[in-house]
Amino acid sequence: MAKLAEQEHPNKAFGWAARDSSGVLSPFNFSRRATGEKDVSFKVLYCGICHSDLHMLKNEWGSTTYPLVPGHEIAGIVTEVGSKVQKFKVGDRVGVGCMVGSCNSCENCSNSLENYCPKMILTYGAKYFDGTTTYGGYSDIMVADEHFVIRIPDNIALDAAAPLLCAGITVYSPLRYYGLDKPGLHVGVVGLGGLGHVAVKFAKAFGAKVTVISTSPNKKKEAIENLGADSFLVSREPEQIQAVLGTFDGIIDTVSAVHPILPLIALLKTHGKLVMVGAPEKPLELPAFPLLMGRKMVAGSCIGGMKETQEMIDFAAKHKITPDIEVIPIDYVNTAMERLVKADVKYRFVIDIGNTLKSSS
Amino acid sequence: MAKLAEQEHPNKAFGWAARDSSGVLSPFNFSRRATGEKDVSFKVLYCGICHSDLHMLKNEWGSTTYPLVPGHEIAGIVTEVGSKVQKFKVGDRVGVGCMVGSCNSCENCSNSLENYCPKMILTYGAKYFDGTTTYGGYSDIMVADEHFVIRIPDNIALDAAAPLLCAGITVYSPLRYYGLDKPGLHVGVVGLGGLGHVAVKFAKAFGAKVTVISTSPNKKKEAIENLGADSFLVSREPEQIQAVLGTFDGIIDTVSAVHPILPLIALLKTHGKLVMVGAPEKPLELPAFPLLMGRKMVAGSCIGGMKETQEMIDFAAKHKITPDIEVIPIDYVNTAMERLVKADVKYRFVIDIGNTLKSSS
Repeated sequence: MAKLAEQEHPNKAFGWAARDSSGVLSPFNFSRRATGEKDVSFKVLYCGICHSDLHMLKNEWGSTTYPLVPGHEIAGIVTEVGSKVQKFKVGDRVGVGCMVGSCNSCENCSNSLENYCPKMILTYGAKYFDGTTTYGGYSDIMVADEHFVIRIPDNIALDAAAPLLCAGITVYSPLRYYGLDKPGLHVGVVGLGGLGHVAVKFAKAFGAKVTVISTSPNKKKEAIENLGADSFLVSREPEQIQAVLGTFDGIIDTVSAVHPILPLIALLKTHGKLVMVGAPEKPLELPAFPLLMGRKMVAGSCIGGMKETQEMIDFAAKHKITPDIEVIPIDYVNTAMERLVKADVKYRFVIDIGNTLKSSS
Repeated sequence: MAKLAEQEHPNKAFGWAARDSSGVLSPFNFSRRATGEKDVSFKVLYCGICHSDLHMLKNEWGSTTYPLVPGHEIAGIVTEVGSKVQKFKVGDRVGVGCMVGSCNSCENCSNSLENYCPKMILTYGAKYFDGTTTYGGYSDIMVADEHFVIRIPDNIALDAAAPLLCAGITVYSPLRYYGLDKPGLHVGVVGLGGLGHVAVKFAKAFGAKVTVISTSPNKKKEAIENLGADSFLVSREPEQIQAVLGTFDGIIDTVSAVHPILPLIALLKTHGKLVMVGAPEKPLELPAFPLLMGRKMVAGSCIGGMKETQEMIDFAAKHKITPDIEVIPIDYVNTAMERLVKADVKYRFVIDIGNTLKSSS
């Protein structure tokens, strides 16, 4: 019989957890391991709500074990460091994103692509090296190996920094890897949610001409005036699409619902790249002919490695890129999830853990 | 009313043409333009039979106009050059591949990617700049702008050189563009036909470990002993597939029938590339999740530019790479087409135009 979550480790922790696939979150007492020699412990001040939290809460990917403490956009202040920690000291502003461990020996780990390590350990709902469950950032304290801790630059507010650790790196990494980070390119962003709105900001900072591609005409003003996009394309308007066929160097597709990609491929120039960062559950229809005729590609990307995540947040700090957030108290989290289902948020909920998460014990 | 093909141009020409969608080829008198100042005229000695000839003969892509003289793997000896021709002289060994013209002003043309020029003119069945129909290499003489003429190195026989001009460049170009030309990579080749067997030879010459992936177990001996592949995978054997999941840096997929690509994506390492050079008529099923999780890509490629085609044939000459061919007389061409439908050829038919094509007039 496994130990109770409260007794597994020496350090008492408190958070909110889902107990079953209803996905409803409620207060939850558990524990964290003692700060190991390479560990950084920190007081969590803010945690972003990622759309994947919602999927996981409701076991929509079939991999959830309960109780589940979600949260992988975590920011806070270091409270303790292990004896061999080199990069951090007490008081530092830090964050943890989607992962807290990897094998450290495979080719991907060697290249700081821990996110593609087959043994990568997710920040919550996974098994850590010691066999215990990982719990995420909807909680008061966090502990992680320093390799998986990010330094948050002083000029980024911690609440706004939190979503960069997942949403930010998820779009930054493909812009870089697929060469869509050069000035003058025409970059499309499909879907204007948590990922999409940050993609617009990064692409603009790289010097691209950015077009938002959306099914909702009413997002145009917002996209152009508030987010700085250069133009806006309603994907359901054939005439609008027709006018810009073959003009995009690359498109970051953040939509996780099943949707047609043929029109997106048609928007690409020859040698253009359609990069998916949302994961529709069912297969998409891929027409081969247009890929061949234009030497185009359809590709995927999934968060980013630790080195690149640090690079991303340093870049964001330098270029004053922060996500647009709505800060909420922890007891609003279930309502926030309901609103997230309806995409009713501009653009990321961030839980004010530091001020609102109070243990009842 | 358009002029008769025989009277359109000053130079009499003779070939074999299809007159309707039966696709049956028969003798055909037509004409070629006089050698322009930048043109190279040559006596056709050999012409390869590409699978696309078959599609075009039968109007399977819906774009055929008749009469159609196919053939875009053309090799011969220069008989006349225009006053401004710089690269060729009478007696040179030359070839023409899939295209004979392009706009010469777009970005792709500027980068010697004429094959992706939106105004690219196909070697047969297209309209040339002067409005006349282009006729292919199943004919006694050829004329083309020198920009679209390839020099065939002395140490490659003309009959074996011919298929390199389409089949060769079609697989060479993606191996290069997608970075699958580095020693030590593991490269898969799906389908062992005209394209696939040359892909094996080029990939080996680049220093790759090459695995042929085929539905036909009986091709194993051939693939390994004759073509030099390192291993062979029967795509219908789940156990064989399972054993090598995640081990391929890239796969060149030459199959033009609809087929599942999920197993091929699963064979790729993280960051692996599945490149399609065959064009299934119906959309394929593309699962997004495995693309994301492994930062993989599915891409296309279509022949290659003129500069790269010359590079390819020089590389082939240097590394003694030639396609395996079955040389046939012109009056066997209809039988050859029937055998091609059944994939009954190792691996490319080449018509001995010089010795067997005789005008009856």
